[in-house]
Amino acid sequence: MRMVDLIIKKRSGESLTRDEIAFWIDGYVNGIIPDYQTSAMCMAILFKGMSEEEVINLTDLMEHSGETLDLSNLKGVKVDKHSTGGVGDKTSLVLGPMVAACGATLAKLSGRGLGHTGGTLDKLESIPGFNIAISGERFTNQINSIGICIAGQTQSLVPADKKMYALRDVTGTVESIPLIAASVMSKKLAAGTDAILLDVTLGNGAFMKDINQARTLAKLMVKIGNGLKRDTRAVLSNMDEPLGMAVGNALEVKEAIAALNGQGPEDLMELCYTSGSIMLEQAHLCRNQMEGRLMLEACIKDGSAFKKFLEMVKAQDGDIEYILHPEKFPLAKNIIPIYAKEEGYIKSIDALEIGLSSMTLGGGRETLDDVIDMSAGIMLNKKVGDYVKEGEVLCYLHSNKNVTLINRVSKEVFNAFVITKEFVEKPKVILEIIQ
Amino acid sequence: MRMVDLIIKKRSGESLTRDEIAFWIDGYVNGIIPDYQTSAMCMAILFKGMSEEEVINLTDLMEHSGETLDLSNLKGVKVDKHSTGGVGDKTSLVLGPMVAACGATLAKLSGRGLGHTGGTLDKLESIPGFNIAISGERFTNQINSIGICIAGQTQSLVPADKKMYALRDVTGTVESIPLIAASVMSKKLAAGTDAILLDVTLGNGAFMKDINQARTLAKLMVKIGNGLKRDTRAVLSNMDEPLGMAVGNALEVKEAIAALNGQGPEDLMELCYTSGSIMLEQAHLCRNQMEGRLMLEACIKDGSAFKKFLEMVKAQDGDIEYILHPEKFPLAKNIIPIYAKEEGYIKSIDALEIGLSSMTLGGGRETLDDVIDMSAGIMLNKKVGDYVKEGEVLCYLHSNKNVTLINRVSKEVFNAFVITKEFVEKPKVILEIIQ
Repeated sequence: MRMVDLIIKKRSGESLTRDEIAFWIDGYVNGIIPDYQTSAMCMAILFKGMSEEEVINLTDLMEHSGETLDLSNLKGVKVDKHSTGGVGDKTSLVLGPMVAACGATLAKLSGRGLGHTGGTLDKLESIPGFNIAISGERFTNQINSIGICIAGQTQSLVPADKKMYALRDVTGTVESIPLIAASVMSKKLAAGTDAILLDVTLGNGAFMKDINQARTLAKLMVKIGNGLKRDTRAVLSNMDEPLGMAVGNALEVKEAIAALNGQGPEDLMELCYTSGSIMLEQAHLCRNQMEGRLMLEACIKDGSAFKKFLEMVKAQDGDIEYILHPEKFPLAKNIIPIYAKEEGYIKSIDALEIGLSSMTLGGGRETLDDVIDMSAGIMLNKKVGDYVKEGEVLCYLHSNKNVTLINRVSKEVFNAFVITKEFVEKPKVILEIIQ
Repeated sequence: MRMVDLIIKKRSGESLTRDEIAFWIDGYVNGIIPDYQTSAMCMAILFKGMSEEEVINLTDLMEHSGETLDLSNLKGVKVDKHSTGGVGDKTSLVLGPMVAACGATLAKLSGRGLGHTGGTLDKLESIPGFNIAISGERFTNQINSIGICIAGQTQSLVPADKKMYALRDVTGTVESIPLIAASVMSKKLAAGTDAILLDVTLGNGAFMKDINQARTLAKLMVKIGNGLKRDTRAVLSNMDEPLGMAVGNALEVKEAIAALNGQGPEDLMELCYTSGSIMLEQAHLCRNQMEGRLMLEACIKDGSAFKKFLEMVKAQDGDIEYILHPEKFPLAKNIIPIYAKEEGYIKSIDALEIGLSSMTLGGGRETLDDVIDMSAGIMLNKKVGDYVKEGEVLCYLHSNKNVTLINRVSKEVFNAFVITKEFVEKPKVILEIIQ
């Protein structure tokens, strides 16, 4: 078998057999097949696509390109949740403790933020002492004792994806639905949970801008997961405006703490209740999603979800004083309000622009080596559908950067808000459920 | 400027500016842009094509990626000829001396054979002593004194093409018409002649199998050449059956010698007369192609073309005794006739199969490191349209390989001939002329 023949086969629109995909992926991971052949193959896949069978084989082979986690000794049905990324997306911090408080076993490996999107690991690290480098026995023990652990992905899982994603990033081959699906799902499957809930975000702050594309991706990932024997379901959620009010690491942790204490913004809570009820159903902890939703509402009301979060922070060496007294989180030196110059309904808030501005203010990283300012970010005061008076605050910028930079960002953030005289309905956060 | 953005631009079907193509080609040659980005770009070009302006820019930038030959001090109009390759294609050995004998200045850089196609340099090297490593001053001096030199391409010409062709060969990106056109034309232009005649071969022994593709390629190359100020024209020639009767290095040289002595096979001579008359017109040596053809016929009849070939062989250290007495060329140990098992007209002779069989018999190389057996090859005894009786010889295999291998090849060569009871017309060798 020669790699060049496989590239030509795919380029001509034919399907690759499992053996052929194995030849490619194994060879690539072992350094026998060079980057330049893999990049040509990825570009051919971008143009010619892959059949469902091909994507399932690719995902399975990528999953097994390195170690996989064996969670079979853990109690209960292990569930995992993955979002395709967005602005202000602190869902895992709220949803994780909620489903764990209801009896599900949440074993989650998370990633870092890059560009306009944040990462769960960065957010958790804004809690002083919080340790995301949990591996092996400690991961298992923590889950067995408190039912939840959110940790960083170890280097030994899915080396094929690590190598291929870095290559795709610099060769214009990121935007291929089969390759995105295989990348996401190989990591989720290698993490070894029994069930997976995918949150496919859609809108200008998300990777997917088009509902048909988002639906195609969600359906494909659900097929891959179920094809490889995991109960996999997906929600399509709105990422045209940021999720919740807070964007930025410590700001989002504080919003998550408030949410766990029953003071979460409506869209964030709706996403958590809907996603969580599906996860509880996947974990066989409720008869139906309606019952699951009631369980989730109860765990917020009775404080057990907040208590679960406290347990997790403590188990992972975080300082729980910050969780009990969120006012301890240091504030940025400059907190600058952005005022509305006219009255009306908020028609849209450009999530991409808010995400990029938060990054510029210090809250995100442009390259993986950048250091994040945990206190930086943007606090919305208004959401789409809200009415605003002239001179009222639209949002606050939080930053330790200099005034020139903040002034520049101010203009961009101001322009991210579109105000109209006509009535604007509050957008739905859950657009579709695929199960 | 970032290479990944240029790949995405091309992938999206947009045109690249001259500066963008320069960024890519210069960066690639200088090792700043890695192979994996260039292979992804080539695959994107394969799918999305290039505008004429893009291809002209690409060719020009590739041409100037290294040294170029300056032939301006040479006498007369310098002409060059290039074939896209075939089986039994010894045209340059016959046509070169013919046009030089008529007063044209032929400065030709040739290549080696690979796979089922032969290379002019290999053929010339079957003449003992013949030196293809002619460079600089000697090249110029030889052309000034005898009007012809056929030499190997120096390493310093068109480094972009050398690097990119090797990459395309292993990444499934050879079959892109803009990339083929830029590759061929950048080399021809760097060789510095005033006029170029392209022989675009078409058929199963050629790279192009489809007349529309061949025509598109020929027209594009003609546009590139003229766009870059060289008189460029093209013929489309038939490569469904081998050209002439001889396939294999020394066998083809002997056929070329016979042709220069007035005993050439019909199709080879027709190709030489048509191509040569265009070249003489390009060199302003005749009023029209009809007159050029008469000049070419005369130089065969009066022996001046053969004399020119002798001069060239002598100037390049070849032993002219072999040219004067071709029976001196050593014959292969085994010369095996292949007999017809039925009578009828030859409907087709699979040129690809004949080329591959000749390679297997020792006459070609599978990889660039293989050593060629100069005496090996196949001598046809019948061509398409000929009538053959049962038991008559179709062709002879020439080989020094063992009997088992020759027997295996015999079957394949036998199957390469299709015989029919119905009358078959002799195919045309010149299919189209683009000028």
